[in-house]
Amino acid sequence: MDQAKIRPIPEPSLRRLPAYLFYLRRMLAGGRDVISCPHIARDLHLDPTLVRKDLEATGMIGKPKVGYPIPQLVGTIEEFLGLHNTRDAFLVGAGHLGAALIGYEGFREIGLNVVAAFDADPAKVGGQLRGISVLPMDKLIELAQRMAVHIGIVTVPAAAAQSVADAMVTGGIRAIWNFAPTHLRVPESVVLEEVQLSSSLAVLSSRLNKMLAPE
Amino acid sequence: MDQAKIRPIPEPSLRRLPAYLFYLRRMLAGGRDVISCPHIARDLHLDPTLVRKDLEATGMIGKPKVGYPIPQLVGTIEEFLGLHNTRDAFLVGAGHLGAALIGYEGFREIGLNVVAAFDADPAKVGGQLRGISVLPMDKLIELAQRMAVHIGIVTVPAAAAQSVADAMVTGGIRAIWNFAPTHLRVPESVVLEEVQLSSSLAVLSSRLNKMLAPE
Repeated sequence: MDQAKIRPIPEPSLRRLPAYLFYLRRMLAGGRDVISCPHIARDLHLDPTLVRKDLEATGMIGKPKVGYPIPQLVGTIEEFLGLHNTRDAFLVGAGHLGAALIGYEGFREIGLNVVAAFDADPAKVGGQLRGISVLPMDKLIELAQRMAVHIGIVTVPAAAAQSVADAMVTGGIRAIWNFAPTHLRVPESVVLEEVQLSSSLAVLSSRLNKMLAPE
Repeated sequence: MDQAKIRPIPEPSLRRLPAYLFYLRRMLAGGRDVISCPHIARDLHLDPTLVRKDLEATGMIGKPKVGYPIPQLVGTIEEFLGLHNTRDAFLVGAGHLGAALIGYEGFREIGLNVVAAFDADPAKVGGQLRGISVLPMDKLIELAQRMAVHIGIVTVPAAAAQSVADAMVTGGIRAIWNFAPTHLRVPESVVLEEVQLSSSLAVLSSRLNKMLAPE
């Protein structure tokens, strides 16, 4: 089972996999062994054809009129998401957003483990963020190298974000998850995933304007 | 200037507009009047052709060899994002994520104003979340109706999210911004924008796996 490396999955399908995984684990915990596409689609408010396509992209084929064996389907999705190796992460910016992410449901469930937080504010350094130690920024590079941490989470203000990312890259971090409201520049050898909340809000606001316009 | 209603903008362009807006406002504050596409592209780490396409989608055409007049460009983007009327919002779930969103940079800048927070936890009710009053859940429907609030932000655990959304819809809320790690079902007359952090993490994790695989 090494499909993740040989078979590319479309990004929209990939983005839906965690929702399937959380759902299927709940079904399994509830004692269910087999589940059909229309059943999954109904419970998750998705189109059944879309669900079939998503699951087929992982290499799983359901049996007609029967469905998917849940334990295998869970294993295949976990494989795809790389959950066999839990990954350690550093979080920089020990504020509310950092605290929210450390406590986010499904965060550990999907294999991410925040091992240390960093902050430039001396008042925060030495304290804890939901049980995680807050360390000074000048320890970031050395610790990332020593602990071979591969994932860095950026939850600092926009103005500080690029210099934090630069330090992460210097420390050998290979994937940056950016929540600061600015785009970052990283070398090609580093994965960058940005969550731009303002963009999401722009879409919401623009759709709402259209919805309210005819009234 | 009523382009937002007559001209559809591609969603990826729409998602980039807030970043242009924040950047252009900073340029304007710094005393600059005119800016070229390549200049914007360089500062925001984007492709110049993409920037030109995005800005043309708002109806603005830059002058060759000169660029865009920044004040008009800012006005046009604000128009597109519907920033002329600031919108009141209710936030349900007075935890770290709610606090992070209330304090998020560029949140107010983009015209959203959280007027009240709600929580099911009696220990939180009556308190404040970053200066916003936390009210009991059973006031949500009545207050949404009375105050004609159109936007609801969901930052509760997955298990509670659908019932919160149902209450919002009953209260007349027309746009729901969902941060709970579950998909919600809303009537067609309600706008739904979901921020699925697990999906973003899945993309990060899958790309990191590919990046580390050949090593």
